[in-house]
Amino acid sequence: MSDFKDFQGVFPYLVSPIGGDGQVLDEVLARLVEDLIAAGVHGLTPLGSTGEFAYLTWEQKRRIVQVVIEAAAGRVPVTAGVAASTTVDARRQARAFQDMGADGIVAVLEAYFPVPRAGIIDFFTQVAGAVDLPVVLYTNPNFQRADLDVEAIVRLAEVPNIRYLKDASGQTGRLLSIMNRVGDALGIFAASAHIPVAVMMIGGKGWMAGPACLVPRQSVALYDLCKAGDWPAAMALQRRLWPLNEAFAKHNLAACVKGGLGMQGYGVGDPLAPQAPLSEDGAAAVHAALAAAEAAA
Amino acid sequence: MSDFKDFQGVFPYLVSPIGGDGQVLDEVLARLVEDLIAAGVHGLTPLGSTGEFAYLTWEQKRRIVQVVIEAAAGRVPVTAGVAASTTVDARRQARAFQDMGADGIVAVLEAYFPVPRAGIIDFFTQVAGAVDLPVVLYTNPNFQRADLDVEAIVRLAEVPNIRYLKDASGQTGRLLSIMNRVGDALGIFAASAHIPVAVMMIGGKGWMAGPACLVPRQSVALYDLCKAGDWPAAMALQRRLWPLNEAFAKHNLAACVKGGLGMQGYGVGDPLAPQAPLSEDGAAAVHAALAAAEAAA
Amino acid sequence: MSDFKDFQGVFPYLVSPIGGDGQVLDEVLARLVEDLIAAGVHGLTPLGSTGEFAYLTWEQKRRIVQVVIEAAAGRVPVTAGVAASTTVDARRQARAFQDMGADGIVAVLEAYFPVPRAGIIDFFTQVAGAVDLPVVLYTNPNFQRADLDVEAIVRLAEVPNIRYLKDASGQTGRLLSIMNRVGDALGIFAASAHIPVAVMMIGGKGWMAGPACLVPRQSVALYDLCKAGDWPAAMALQRRLWPLNEAFAKHNLAACVKGGLGMQGYGVGDPLAPQAPLSEDGAAAVHAALAAAEAAA
Amino acid sequence: MSDFKDFQGVFPYLVSPIGGDGQVLDEVLARLVEDLIAAGVHGLTPLGSTGEFAYLTWEQKRRIVQVVIEAAAGRVPVTAGVAASTTVDARRQARAFQDMGADGIVAVLEAYFPVPRAGIIDFFTQVAGAVDLPVVLYTNPNFQRADLDVEAIVRLAEVPNIRYLKDASGQTGRLLSIMNRVGDALGIFAASAHIPVAVMMIGGKGWMAGPACLVPRQSVALYDLCKAGDWPAAMALQRRLWPLNEAFAKHNLAACVKGGLGMQGYGVGDPLAPQAPLSEDGAAAVHAALAAAEAAA
Repeated sequence: MSDFKDFQGVFPYLVSPIGGDGQVLDEVLARLVEDLIAAGVHGLTPLGSTGEFAYLTWEQKRRIVQVVIEAAAGRVPVTAGVAASTTVDARRQARAFQDMGADGIVAVLEAYFPVPRAGIIDFFTQVAGAVDLPVVLYTNPNFQRADLDVEAIVRLAEVPNIRYLKDASGQTGRLLSIMNRVGDALGIFAASAHIPVAVMMIGGKGWMAGPACLVPRQSVALYDLCKAGDWPAAMALQRRLWPLNEAFAKHNLAACVKGGLGMQGYGVGDPLAPQAPLSEDGAAAVHAALAAAEAAA
Repeated sequence: MSDFKDFQGVFPYLVSPIGGDGQVLDEVLARLVEDLIAAGVHGLTPLGSTGEFAYLTWEQKRRIVQVVIEAAAGRVPVTAGVAASTTVDARRQARAFQDMGADGIVAVLEAYFPVPRAGIIDFFTQVAGAVDLPVVLYTNPNFQRADLDVEAIVRLAEVPNIRYLKDASGQTGRLLSIMNRVGDALGIFAASAHIPVAVMMIGGKGWMAGPACLVPRQSVALYDLCKAGDWPAAMALQRRLWPLNEAFAKHNLAACVKGGLGMQGYGVGDPLAPQAPLSEDGAAAVHAALAAAEAAA
Repeated sequence: MSDFKDFQGVFPYLVSPIGGDGQVLDEVLARLVEDLIAAGVHGLTPLGSTGEFAYLTWEQKRRIVQVVIEAAAGRVPVTAGVAASTTVDARRQARAFQDMGADGIVAVLEAYFPVPRAGIIDFFTQVAGAVDLPVVLYTNPNFQRADLDVEAIVRLAEVPNIRYLKDASGQTGRLLSIMNRVGDALGIFAASAHIPVAVMMIGGKGWMAGPACLVPRQSVALYDLCKAGDWPAAMALQRRLWPLNEAFAKHNLAACVKGGLGMQGYGVGDPLAPQAPLSEDGAAAVHAALAAAEAAA
Repeated sequence: MSDFKDFQGVFPYLVSPIGGDGQVLDEVLARLVEDLIAAGVHGLTPLGSTGEFAYLTWEQKRRIVQVVIEAAAGRVPVTAGVAASTTVDARRQARAFQDMGADGIVAVLEAYFPVPRAGIIDFFTQVAGAVDLPVVLYTNPNFQRADLDVEAIVRLAEVPNIRYLKDASGQTGRLLSIMNRVGDALGIFAASAHIPVAVMMIGGKGWMAGPACLVPRQSVALYDLCKAGDWPAAMALQRRLWPLNEAFAKHNLAACVKGGLGMQGYGVGDPLAPQAPLSEDGAAAVHAALAAAEAAA
């Protein structure tokens, strides 16, 4: 089991670089991991939304997690995305990632038909029961049909190894409601739809988000300012980083991060079709946001 | 290539019977196919929504299509569901089903991120280009995130082997709008959200739907009355069959058909978790609807 | 009380012609009423959605109903739209229209905050209790926040003078579900989102809709074909009239009917700002639809 | 014109106390105003969502604004809610409130049909043009159909007397996006769906919200801590006040504030039917939240 006692800080959601023949581009992924760790990130999450988990085969998923774990080499925790429509498949994925050496999993329920709350609770409880790792609940009402309501989260917080929540609702008040209900039982991570500084101030643990792939140093600096309680300086930096989050909200998530990494010299390719590569407008927005972030550093 | 010149009539959406160990229950599936053909259905669709396509592994999908094709033995066309989030995966599935002997495919785009119209058109065009079979477009705004709008459908109707549309919007007027735009280029099939008689009257080709698994004889009788232009008799029968469609709209689709087939002696099991088995209320509604349909026959 | 025993057939939703100074344009409204009656319509509905009920002052509403009642002069029933957010206001409006000589009311709940089912039932029950007139329930999920679900409709059907339902959901199957539940207790009218012929075939009483203002003769001819059971001829005519309904669904409702009436020589003006006048695209669509309808006559 | 140079701080959204006969309950409203001013609030807003603007007659609205202006007697600014579906009506209301002595208006577009961005911009521009007062844009996507998107807000910020925005989206990141775009041209006020402290930290001016009617002293204390930059103390207090906002989000807004004020000895009555009075569950939640707030003071 993992040596990492606690997850906190900046966890970039990694992209999944796939070649034209469907092969994972191991080298660029390993280099990205190396550079992110050098920049000071506190953890790594392959197979999040940004990682196009909904677009990959199981073989691709396995390979990506393996490359990331090997490249990270125990320096930071790796929390791998488990996303499935059936309980059986989710448990199988979770166990496989544990066997491969992941330090935690980020769990998603991919619903097609609506799932009542009891079914949602059962799904995540069973996924958690399949592993000895800490589990991060991940709910994203923009893209997922089975949203976790506050009641479900409160119930799931009772499962011992369900330890974190990543929420992409953008409703900061919802996070405070959850914190008030679950206390220390769940650590709350922001997603790119939230303002990281605001989430840190209300008591969050950090953020798991695609933009941190592109601006890791600035993200870590932002986190450090928050931890130091220097809110005015944190907000000043936050304001300059925010346009990157805006670009992600407006354009396709994977296209944005892959496009931005391309600008930075990482040949991670395009998102998988029928997703489109980053548009000209999107590229301009990302480029401008990166320049602003660079100036802020 | 298939000998079937045209798809029309009643195509039951088949359930996917899976055992506790994840194995496809071949025998009960083959028996169901045999009985449906004996009842006069005009085609069979494995891996539709009712067939829980979103919950199955590729191995399970392959096996289900194979069993159905073998059991049908060329007596009626088999149109297999192809559902994927990537173009590559959808093309691979479509070719595999063609190689196995399917007579057509029913194509679904499983989107996670929003897909602009151009991406939707490209996806279906490429899937169609992967096979020599007739393609049925399937759009279900209740469960799928990438709905096909009328403009996309009009554009896709120009692809030679995209020949049919199954629409589950429940908006009968939308079907008429599409028919007015595409003329004979696309044959329109209703889903269970539409009133089959109403769709037949405005010019539909038939219906592809889960309820027909449970009331195949009555469904065929209804189709025959429509083809004969005996609308008053068709409507009288339609009224008595409609409660089955209502039950499906209210309860989980797969749970309804699997639960109803269980009542009829087919041991098809429950839907895959975290979907719940048919509830007590649902079972009562299905039971009553089946009794009403039986009385109507 | 009204001499009209039953409402059925074609009820055009009238526009509300308002001059630049806010005055009701009595003459053009009276002339429209005269011409619609001459064309054979079976009733008239001022203050529906098309009549911009949500945009008028009480003084304007009163005047419009008065002009319509006087112009109709008892030849066809006038069912006036009552729309309010409070029960008190709705009852007051209903009684005023009864006093003015209306033959029925069409009742709408304008909700701002969500209203639970019990509140919805209470509202319509109390409105019905305020008058001796037949009441038409009107539900339009596209524009109204308090949609009437089937259970609420079934309960309201027990109120003696709630006699009709106009449903604008576009879900034809929902109408059949309601008919199966309420039997003869409610007569069902289609809205422009439904295909009138389809609704007539499943047992509807007619339709209340804006387009009938523009093509009254063809609408009446369509109704007569339906009543005669000549479904093939009805469908042939329906197909040619449908583009008008499509234009209304795509462009602003009031702008479409007002724009179309302008083309026919009725100076009814534009919809009230900030609604925009019919766009160039919209005008072209309406013009083409009217030409097609004219050719069909 | 008003002597108030700038709006900032805590602006309670006042309830509208209406008697059984429809009369405004002047005395209790005046007493509430007096007590809120004594508690240190920085402004008062009659006819917001909490003030049931969507449920009142014009006579009731006029009377409420008059009572509030007279009771405030120039000690704090009064910003009166203008809500209308037509531009003409909104301008008329705005001018009337200016004539009565209001210090600003809070403007809402009540749309029935969808309004394109150009129409939205025109509406608010024209309302602003009708008065010499500062205008607060108010957008609430939970209850209003014409949401103001960021582009529309950026455009409206160019109108000289459009000076503030109250946003009830709950998306704190959206506020930061707006601030980054408009700079000092608009002051941003939070609504009860946002965490006031978070909005203050990112640069907000204060909050306009119903809960402040019930906990005015604590709200002012919270504002003072924010202004002093004592974020840890502010967050500690914020956490204890938040349950009140949660109650408002869960139960009917007007019912919550009216019910809570009833508990505090203000006989403001129930919300107007068909809205229901505060439920038993709601009363328990409000009671507990008020006790927690009292303990926090």
